Amino acid sequence: MRSLYCGEVNESHVGQEVTLCGWVNRRRDLGAVIFLDLRDREGIVQVVYDPDFPDVLEKANTLRNEFCVQVKGKVRARPDGQVNKDMATGAIEVLGLELTILNKSAPLPLDSNQKNSEELRLKYRYLDLRRPEMTERMRFRAKVTSAVRSSLESQGFLDIETPILTAATPEGARDYLVPSRTHKGQFFALPQSPQLFKQLLMMSGMERYYQIVKCFRDEDLRADRQPEFTQIDIETSFMSSDQVMEVTETMIRGLFQELLNVDLGEFPRMAYSEAMTRFGSDKPDLRNPLEIVDVADILKDVEFKVFSGPANDENGRVAVICVPGGAAKFSRKGIDELTKFVGIYGAKGMPWLKVNDRDAGIEGLQSPILKFLTEEAVNALLERTNAKTGDIIFFGSDTYNVVTESLGALRLKIGEDLELLQGEWKPLWVVDFPMFEEADGHMHAIHHPFTAPTNLTAAELEANPVGALSDAYDMVLNGCELGGGSVRIHNQDMQAAVFRILGISDEEAQEKFGFLLEALQYGAPPHAGLAFGLDRLVMLMTGASSIRDVMAFPKTTTAACPLTNAPGHANPVQLKELGIACLEKETDTDEKAE
Amino acid sequence: MRSLYCGEVNESHVGQEVTLCGWVNRRRDLGAVIFLDLRDREGIVQVVYDPDFPDVLEKANTLRNEFCVQVKGKVRARPDGQVNKDMATGAIEVLGLELTILNKSAPLPLDSNQKNSEELRLKYRYLDLRRPEMTERMRFRAKVTSAVRSSLESQGFLDIETPILTAATPEGARDYLVPSRTHKGQFFALPQSPQLFKQLLMMSGMERYYQIVKCFRDEDLRADRQPEFTQIDIETSFMSSDQVMEVTETMIRGLFQELLNVDLGEFPRMAYSEAMTRFGSDKPDLRNPLEIVDVADILKDVEFKVFSGPANDENGRVAVICVPGGAAKFSRKGIDELTKFVGIYGAKGMPWLKVNDRDAGIEGLQSPILKFLTEEAVNALLERTNAKTGDIIFFGSDTYNVVTESLGALRLKIGEDLELLQGEWKPLWVVDFPMFEEADGHMHAIHHPFTAPTNLTAAELEANPVGALSDAYDMVLNGCELGGGSVRIHNQDMQAAVFRILGISDEEAQEKFGFLLEALQYGAPPHAGLAFGLDRLVMLMTGASSIRDVMAFPKTTTAACPLTNAPGHANPVQLKELGIACLEKETDTDEKAE
Repeated sequence: MRSLYCGEVNESHVGQEVTLCGWVNRRRDLGAVIFLDLRDREGIVQVVYDPDFPDVLEKANTLRNEFCVQVKGKVRARPDGQVNKDMATGAIEVLGLELTILNKSAPLPLDSNQKNSEELRLKYRYLDLRRPEMTERMRFRAKVTSAVRSSLESQGFLDIETPILTAATPEGARDYLVPSRTHKGQFFALPQSPQLFKQLLMMSGMERYYQIVKCFRDEDLRADRQPEFTQIDIETSFMSSDQVMEVTETMIRGLFQELLNVDLGEFPRMAYSEAMTRFGSDKPDLRNPLEIVDVADILKDVEFKVFSGPANDENGRVAVICVPGGAAKFSRKGIDELTKFVGIYGAKGMPWLKVNDRDAGIEGLQSPILKFLTEEAVNALLERTNAKTGDIIFFGSDTYNVVTESLGALRLKIGEDLELLQGEWKPLWVVDFPMFEEADGHMHAIHHPFTAPTNLTAAELEANPVGALSDAYDMVLNGCELGGGSVRIHNQDMQAAVFRILGISDEEAQEKFGFLLEALQYGAPPHAGLAFGLDRLVMLMTGASSIRDVMAFPKTTTAACPLTNAPGHANPVQLKELGIACLEKETDTDEKAE
Repeated sequence: MRSLYCGEVNESHVGQEVTLCGWVNRRRDLGAVIFLDLRDREGIVQVVYDPDFPDVLEKANTLRNEFCVQVKGKVRARPDGQVNKDMATGAIEVLGLELTILNKSAPLPLDSNQKNSEELRLKYRYLDLRRPEMTERMRFRAKVTSAVRSSLESQGFLDIETPILTAATPEGARDYLVPSRTHKGQFFALPQSPQLFKQLLMMSGMERYYQIVKCFRDEDLRADRQPEFTQIDIETSFMSSDQVMEVTETMIRGLFQELLNVDLGEFPRMAYSEAMTRFGSDKPDLRNPLEIVDVADILKDVEFKVFSGPANDENGRVAVICVPGGAAKFSRKGIDELTKFVGIYGAKGMPWLKVNDRDAGIEGLQSPILKFLTEEAVNALLERTNAKTGDIIFFGSDTYNVVTESLGALRLKIGEDLELLQGEWKPLWVVDFPMFEEADGHMHAIHHPFTAPTNLTAAELEANPVGALSDAYDMVLNGCELGGGSVRIHNQDMQAAVFRILGISDEEAQEKFGFLLEALQYGAPPHAGLAFGLDRLVMLMTGASSIRDVMAFPKTTTAACPLTNAPGHANPVQLKELGIACLEKETDTDEKAE
């Protein structure tokens, strides 16, 4: 129905007849002449109807925005002065000779000139996707998946599908359940990830597996989570963590080079403990130049208990952030706001110190707590933080966790508020995570219970689980976790030891993971893997502000679809066949429309 | 951990040291020497441990089948006479110098020398997949998806993901439901296909969409259906049915050429009515040379009511299949069995006629019904069927449907029993389907309710729905439907007319498809598409006998997974959170193990 795309018409076609299909992006009547901006997936071209062809001009006169049309015409160079250099097809136009209206359009419910509510955009997603910005994101996403596939397949990774209808797992977030009709009263679960299946594929000798695969989590939706999301899922046998990091770093570097013409360089590696100490985060944004500096040793002998208390407590932490040039940026009111902000993370206050004149000694400083500090301590502080005239120093002094979290958050906030970020892309690997964290008297796996410890036997691990490091790695870009993975446990004794440490009883382990434990005894190979969040990756690469903007048909933040009205009422007969009943009255569907 | 794969070692490596990883496929002790067949994904290589290296020989002595090992050794040519030409690596062997046992293996629960039950194979799927035949199928499947993607992407198709958690549809088979926690008492449905979403993507101007995507059907499982299956899903704008067929035929032809070195040639096209008349099937296996031949005109005046009744009834059909050389193949008992077989399809009997001597006139024929026929009719019959000495003719005489179905099934059975199939690959397109079929006093869509009629206005369609043909097409290969699709309705009036014909009320249409009807009014483009069943395609291409053999982790025929024990019991707390309860006692899990 077309000879080429609108966006493809150029000066080489001048004099040729072309057939185009697309939508009326805009129509302008200039007296006797009608100009049409005709849009398709590849771009926009100008079509002109003039009085020399009165029949087609008359027809063109009936066109409205978003009519779907087929246009036949002759390409001609635009007259000098009418060339539009901002437009890919701006050097030419198409003289309209024939016009077929393929479908009319009512006026759109979305306003193309102003920002529509997200609710409205999702209800009319098919119209929202017509915006060139959205079309380009969908196309970019397709390019990313294609490049990922090429990269992995060229290295011998096999695309193998794993089930969507599977068994429930006791992992972190909640499973979506699917009632079984054949086995009444029983349920499938949608996978939170294909973790166990990809490990089983290694045990089956597939050696290198990948899949770009939907995963599901029924959790309270934070601003930027979706009930279904897409993972680039990777697993390999006979590779060390270094090799997995190399393969996947090469892939991501290649993506940025190919699609954005950006050289990410070699990714630095940072231990989890260093990331937490210096940046208060396990996914530090290295574009942010601010760092958390420990000063407990300097302040442990001052009389001020706010400092000396935590400084002498082994679970305490005393640290500062020095903001270069920040003294003039923060009024008393601004500091009060920051104090409130760190309060969210449990900080009970936030002492500060402005360096008004570095050369004037104590006299040049301004701080409500100056009187509690010795001159020696102050000088050591200024030296440690390399503070200069015009800087401001913020203090955190509390338990390790409160100080680390609150200063980590403060660092991000100030970095953003003062526009301190440097450089466009700052990737890194975070490594050497602890195997476990203790909370509520229980040990929890930092990654997941199939993660191997670094250089420990099962016995050594059980003897000192708190100090054990895992052979895990997270890829972080600009403060976002792009992906994470680990070397897996391939030894049955080690897996049993980890389950014991996690307080998973033999019975529970057997019930939930019996097949994995059994599989480990039949020559399971050493294996490791990683999963990337595709949505987040594409969001970062396109500069979109939400993962919803890089998904064709996302759900709202209350996990509903305003377009199809899902979820919806079920047929009672069908529920009966499934052997289930609803306990409560249905919630009002209006609730979805938030 | 390895320098190359086992299957890659060849004569060019002679003299080199290599490091290999894999599994002990077989161990043979030949006195002082141990031979090891070491297997990885790429093949098998022979490793030799000899007494010159007593330490490693001793270690090799502890190896058992399926131990996972790392082997360092030197490649050497095998002595003359020990070269194994049936083995890719049969010209060389590796002299083992170092050996690391990566993991031991207990004796496998699957027997490598005999056929294991499918239940056992699925329970230990990860071991079943180690069989080179299964590994090769997974690899072949990955090659197919990769080639499909390349083909479509090179033609500008964009891979766009559609939701898995979506709204229920009133289409044929049953939806899997997923209770929503956020909207208690309401349910998502898993998609039977992304049909509506791909149409919406056309309305959003994406122009060319594809996806290799999981679809779900909760139906009683026939031998070769799976609750979740994979579709190659395609949709385009501004293309006619001819163009869609050309694009997809080119893709499939390319696949066979690239992966099997088979030239499928140009696919013939056949009208649905011709396929039903000549082959009794809408997916005729053209490798089978037998055809159904209509003979009502010849037999309408005979006195034998079995023939003349249906021959004179406008809903009746009288037809025959002539089996060349079949006279000697079917004893009276064999014929009785066939009569029973066609009885399954409603045939109340099956007259037959053997041509013992074609040149002897009536004398040369043998049949219990000969006495009821005129010589003229018999001669016309022999001429029409081109029957020769040694042939047998089977008769069907009943309603059109009974004769067509029963002779269609008989044709397949005889073709298979007598091994009549000719040629390896016989593709075709079946086109010109009726829009609707009438059953139980209702009209049903032959394809789906979004299929456009061929060259009809909405008014013309409503005036005569029974005679309307749809602009739909099925790709058939060797009697299997590989895929099917159609031009879609892009006009709101036409869509509303089809819903009326199907007896879908305005209210129901609005409730279920309101968003589609609404979308049609905003300049929806002409569009068309098609979906292939990937599992079936790979099954045919690999010669597997079931789609379960080309899926990594299929379910049993009762929709259960013996490996993970899915479906399983749900946590009562979780059910309460979802606002549902189980109506009945759980079924015994043993039931799954059928």
